[in-house]
Amino acid sequence: MKIKRVTVTPIAFRDPPLLNASGIHEPYALRSIIEVEADNGVIGLGESYGDAPVLAALLALREPLVGLSIFDLNGLETRVRAILSTLPPPEAGAELAPGSHPSKQIPNAYSAFEVALLDAQARTIGVPLVELLGGAVRDKVPFSAYLFFKYAAHIDDCYPPDPWGEAIDPAGIVAQAKRMIDAHGFESIKLKAGALEPEVECAAIVALSEAFPGLPLRIDPNGNWSLETAVNCADQLYEMLEYYEDPVPGLQGMADLHRRTGLPLATNMVVTDFDELRQSLSLDSVQIVLSDHHYWGGLRRTQMLAQMCEVFGLGLSMHSNSHLGISLMAMTHLAAATPRLSYACDTHYPWVEEEDEVIVGGKVPIIGGCVAITDAPGLGVELDRDMVAALHDLYRTIDIRSRDDARQMRKYRPDWSTKKPRF
Amino acid sequence: MKIKRVTVTPIAFRDPPLLNASGIHEPYALRSIIEVEADNGVIGLGESYGDAPVLAALLALREPLVGLSIFDLNGLETRVRAILSTLPPPEAGAELAPGSHPSKQIPNAYSAFEVALLDAQARTIGVPLVELLGGAVRDKVPFSAYLFFKYAAHIDDCYPPDPWGEAIDPAGIVAQAKRMIDAHGFESIKLKAGALEPEVECAAIVALSEAFPGLPLRIDPNGNWSLETAVNCADQLYEMLEYYEDPVPGLQGMADLHRRTGLPLATNMVVTDFDELRQSLSLDSVQIVLSDHHYWGGLRRTQMLAQMCEVFGLGLSMHSNSHLGISLMAMTHLAAATPRLSYACDTHYPWVEEEDEVIVGGKVPIIGGCVAITDAPGLGVELDRDMVAALHDLYRTIDIRSRDDARQMRKYRPDWSTKKPRF
Repeated sequence: MKIKRVTVTPIAFRDPPLLNASGIHEPYALRSIIEVEADNGVIGLGESYGDAPVLAALLALREPLVGLSIFDLNGLETRVRAILSTLPPPEAGAELAPGSHPSKQIPNAYSAFEVALLDAQARTIGVPLVELLGGAVRDKVPFSAYLFFKYAAHIDDCYPPDPWGEAIDPAGIVAQAKRMIDAHGFESIKLKAGALEPEVECAAIVALSEAFPGLPLRIDPNGNWSLETAVNCADQLYEMLEYYEDPVPGLQGMADLHRRTGLPLATNMVVTDFDELRQSLSLDSVQIVLSDHHYWGGLRRTQMLAQMCEVFGLGLSMHSNSHLGISLMAMTHLAAATPRLSYACDTHYPWVEEEDEVIVGGKVPIIGGCVAITDAPGLGVELDRDMVAALHDLYRTIDIRSRDDARQMRKYRPDWSTKKPRF
Repeated sequence: MKIKRVTVTPIAFRDPPLLNASGIHEPYALRSIIEVEADNGVIGLGESYGDAPVLAALLALREPLVGLSIFDLNGLETRVRAILSTLPPPEAGAELAPGSHPSKQIPNAYSAFEVALLDAQARTIGVPLVELLGGAVRDKVPFSAYLFFKYAAHIDDCYPPDPWGEAIDPAGIVAQAKRMIDAHGFESIKLKAGALEPEVECAAIVALSEAFPGLPLRIDPNGNWSLETAVNCADQLYEMLEYYEDPVPGLQGMADLHRRTGLPLATNMVVTDFDELRQSLSLDSVQIVLSDHHYWGGLRRTQMLAQMCEVFGLGLSMHSNSHLGISLMAMTHLAAATPRLSYACDTHYPWVEEEDEVIVGGKVPIIGGCVAITDAPGLGVELDRDMVAALHDLYRTIDIRSRDDARQMRKYRPDWSTKKPRF
C-alpha cells in the first residue's frame, strides 16, 4: 500500500465581501485539493490553503512522496522536512490565515498529506476515518453560526451579489444570524469583530443576546483591540460571552487581559503551535485553544493538543478559514473522535455558494447546527472531478495568488492601513 | 470487525532472586495474557500485570467488551471506566510496579486491551503494528543491559538455581554485565540499586565504567536514598552516568536533588501519569521520563507523552517490569514508531528462562542490544497455547497472587522493614 501518484490542484471559489481586522475578503478564496493514489487503487483526499507559498510546497512534495507507505506518517514528516528545506523561504502570508505563515510551512504541508494518507488508510480498511482516530464519541459534531459584518457586494463587480445582503450594524448582524440559524439550526454564535468601531460590535453582541437568549455567544476581534478597548468591551459583554476570542494581540497582552477581566480567553492567533502553547501556559495567556488541524500538523497532532489541553486544564475549540467539504469532513471526523473537543466548532462553510463545492452531491448538510458522520469509508466524501476542473479553470482566470484582505480593502478605502490594534 | 470473545489468562513464570529497594523478587512473576478475538477471526494479543487486583479488573471487562469495534478505543475507555467504577477499590499493589497501584487501575486495564485492539487492527489490515503507530523511524530498537544484585538461588528451593549465579558486589555485577552483553550485545547498562549499601552500589558503577569504557551507564535506587546519600553518590558518579534514575523519593526530593547536583534525573516513580508530569514541569523535578505503556494508558497515550516531552524539552526513555514477549514486542513497536524515544529502553527480558516464553518459537532474540521489527502483521508474534496452558497451570499451583518483594525478603531476613529511604 504505497503511494503511486499525488495530485495537487489549486482551485478558487467565490467568497463574500466579509469584513475583518485586516480588511475584507477578496471575491475568491483559494484552496488546494490533494489526491493521493495508492497502489491498491484507493485515493485519499486532502484540502489545504491555496496561497502561492503553500501551493509551491505542496507541489514540490508530489514526486518525493511516491513510494511512501500510506501508513508511514513518520516517513511523511521526514520527507516534508527534507524537501521543504530545499525550497526558498516562503513570503509572509495572510495575517488571519495562520496556516499560510512561513513558520507553519512544515506542519501545514504535513497536515495536507496526513489527512489524505489517513483517508487512504481508512478507505483501504473500509472504515470511516473517525474509527482510525479512536472511534466516535459523538456521531454529530456541532458547529457555530459564524457571523461577519459585510458589504452587500464586492467592489470588483465580478459576479452577482451574494444572497446574504449587507450587515454593517447590529440589526444587520441579527438578521444574518436569523437567516443562518434558520438554514442550519446552529446553537451557538460567533461574531467576527475587529472590523468596525468596537461600540458597534459590542452592540451587535448585545443585540444577539437579546434576539437569541440562551445561545452561547463569542466575539473575535482578531487581536485588533487595545487592552483598554478590550477591557471596556469585557465590562459590557461579561455576562453574555461563552468565551472572548483574541481581543488583543500577543501572549502577554492576552495574559494581561485575562488578569484584568477574569474572562476565559480563546485564541487561534497567539497559540498556533506547541511552543506557543508552552509559553501561554507559563503566562496564563489563554484558557481555550482553537485548534486547526491544517496548521497544527494534522489530525493526530491535534489529538495530542487535545490531550495537552486536558492535562493543563485548558478548553479546546476549533478554528476555521474559508474551506470546502473535504476540510469540513476532516474537521468533523477529528471532532467526533476527540472527547475534549466539546465546544461547537467554527466553520466558514455556510458562506460557500451551493454551486462551488468539489464533492459529489454538493455541499455537506449542516442540520441542527451539526455535521453528521456516516458509515462511508474514510472522510466519507468523493471528489466531483468536473467541479474540481471548473474551479481550477476559475483559479487560472483570476489574478489572486495569495490572500490579501488589506490590499482588497484599499480598493474601497485607498488610505486603509494595516495598523494593529486598530481600535 | 467487532469483538466476539475476550480471554484473560493469568500465568506464572520463574523469576530469579533479584534484589531491589523493596526486598527481593519472588520465585515466580505473574502476568495476564489477553486475547481479543474479532468477528473477522483475527485475534489481538496483549500482556499485562498478573497481580490479583489487576487480574480482577481484566476479568471483569471480558464480557462488557464483546460487541465493541476493534477500532473503537474511545469506546474501550468508556467501558473500562464504567465497569471498573462498579468494582471494589483495589488494594495497594507492589510498590515497584506502578501499574499495579490502585490509582493506575483504569489506564492499566485500558492499556492491556488497547494493545490487543491495536494488534487486532494491524492484523486485520495486514501491516505490522508499527505502521499503525505512524511508521518505523528505526527497524531495530536498542535496549539496555538491566543488571541486578542477586542471590544465587531462591530461599524457597522450588526449582534449580538460575544460570546467572550470585552478584552481591562490584565484581559480581561486572561478571553479570559481561555475561549479559556477551549474550545480547547491549550497548548501555542499567544497574538496579537501592538494595545494598550505597558505597557498594557506587563502587559497582565505577567498576562497570572501567570494565565497559564508553558504554552509557544508569543507576536506579528506586527512591531508596536520602537526599544526602544521593548527593554524595552523585559526586562520585557524576562523570559516569547517562542519567540518574529515581535516587530519592518524591517530586520535591527529585527537584531538590536536581538543583543541588545538576545531574539529569530520570523517573518511573514520581512521574507516572500526566498530572504528575504537570507537577514535575512546575518543580523541574525530572528531566527524563521513563514511559511504560502498561500504566501510561496504552501505546497511543505514550506517544502523546512523547510529544509532551518534546514540547517541554524532556528526554524520554522506557521502563520495564518482569514481562514476556508480547509486552516486549508492544514496547518495541512503540519505540520503533516514536522518534523521541531515543534512549535504549529498559527490559527485564534477559532474566526470563528460555523455556518460559508463551510465544511460538520461544524467546524473541535480542541481538546487538536490539529487538528487530519484522514485516509480520500486528505485534508479529503468535501465542503458543500449550505454553500458556502450562504457565497457567503453574499459576494455579503456586500461592503468589500479588507481588510482594518485602514479604519475600522477610524469608531471608525476618526483621526486614519497608522503611524508605533505607539509605
